Amino acid sequence: MTAGEKIVGVIGGMGPEATVEFMRRLVAAVPAKDDADHLHVIADNNPKVPSRIKALIEGGGEDPAPVLIAMARGLEAAGAGVLAIPCNTAHYYLPQIARAVRVPVLDVVALAVGGLSSLAPKPRRVGMLASTAIRLVGLFGARLGAAGFETLFPDAERQAGLLDVIRAVKAGAVTAEHRQVYQGVARHLAGQGADAFLVACTELSLLPAPDVTRPVLDTLDILVDATVAAARD
Amino acid sequence: MTAGEKIVGVIGGMGPEATVEFMRRLVAAVPAKDDADHLHVIADNNPKVPSRIKALIEGGGEDPAPVLIAMARGLEAAGAGVLAIPCNTAHYYLPQIARAVRVPVLDVVALAVGGLSSLAPKPRRVGMLASTAIRLVGLFGARLGAAGFETLFPDAERQAGLLDVIRAVKAGAVTAEHRQVYQGVARHLAGQGADAFLVACTELSLLPAPDVTRPVLDTLDILVDATVAAARD
Repeated sequence: MTAGEKIVGVIGGMGPEATVEFMRRLVAAVPAKDDADHLHVIADNNPKVPSRIKALIEGGGEDPAPVLIAMARGLEAAGAGVLAIPCNTAHYYLPQIARAVRVPVLDVVALAVGGLSSLAPKPRRVGMLASTAIRLVGLFGARLGAAGFETLFPDAERQAGLLDVIRAVKAGAVTAEHRQVYQGVARHLAGQGADAFLVACTELSLLPAPDVTRPVLDTLDILVDATVAAARD
Repeated sequence: MTAGEKIVGVIGGMGPEATVEFMRRLVAAVPAKDDADHLHVIADNNPKVPSRIKALIEGGGEDPAPVLIAMARGLEAAGAGVLAIPCNTAHYYLPQIARAVRVPVLDVVALAVGGLSSLAPKPRRVGMLASTAIRLVGLFGARLGAAGFETLFPDAERQAGLLDVIRAVKAGAVTAEHRQVYQGVARHLAGQGADAFLVACTELSLLPAPDVTRPVLDTLDILVDATVAAARD
């Protein structure tokens, strides 16, 4: 192992394909001549984590927090020196997870604020391409607001369409129509004045980025870059 | 978790991209309506395992076995009920790994024999698309021979070319020329009488299958199918 390089622990499975894509981008992000140049990653790709959609949107679902905490502790016990969660919605439980382990857990919301702040010119209105749960629990709104960004979410009907797209990705059943809905939501937010976009759902990260004339930041890419930096810190 | 479904442990990192591809194919192999339908997979994607090429071909390299055994034990301790190794060459160490844990470890060589035997008509000569190490340690030859198959390896020059292709995959530096070399090796083996092909290196599984008129079995696919079956057994 490169001296001082940390093992990356991945609290994954939400969904499993997004976790695999996160791992693929981690491999692609590290210039390597041979295997050993890559990061050592231990991934708990656990699709049995209780549904965040059920717990946060529909109500009455099982609390995902205890499972997420157990996964974090398992990864720490396995030697992970930094943890990443390639699921934006699961960051609702980040304070509980972070308190349960001694190693740092990357915070995709803080990282997104940093990414948006580094754009020039700095955007004012950020179009949010995210799960309905993200909006309901206010995961990005307050912290982006504190950093001087206004968050623009789709109206209820378009947000429902976006949730259908996310569910289609999880079911491996994305059609051209789903891609069109996604694109339509982004264009609509552009019309509402969004001057940057944040892809803040790892299922949406699996689709081609929306074709808009404003910058599009993908939280999955932001998390990949931060993970590489943190592992080598 | 589906009743009785085992957690899959992946002894990975050899190379890391092949492990990610194995995980991607595992997700794709399971029909799912939502996350929870997928298998729970814990992957130790450890690219720091001592080089099998150095240990088995070049000589004098560090022995990978103790690291592989520690990974297997770690995955068992984390709850894995079945282990898979998405690296053919690492199967040289399978007997040692299997002795070190109580859970079953899938054997890609036995699985490949099964896959080839199920072809109709049954092939006689199997063109081996594999690392030089596979040939040197006789990993497939004897057991395919016992099952009635003759193994055809490329001549020394073409085998060296194939090892260059494998190294290029590990370095993320595959060119059109590498693909052509791979294709040329397969065509040459076809000319030597191969009536089936076995892709027996997970780096080669990352390339498009060679364009030949005989059946091509990919050990990575064979391992994916067997992993799904074993997890649900």
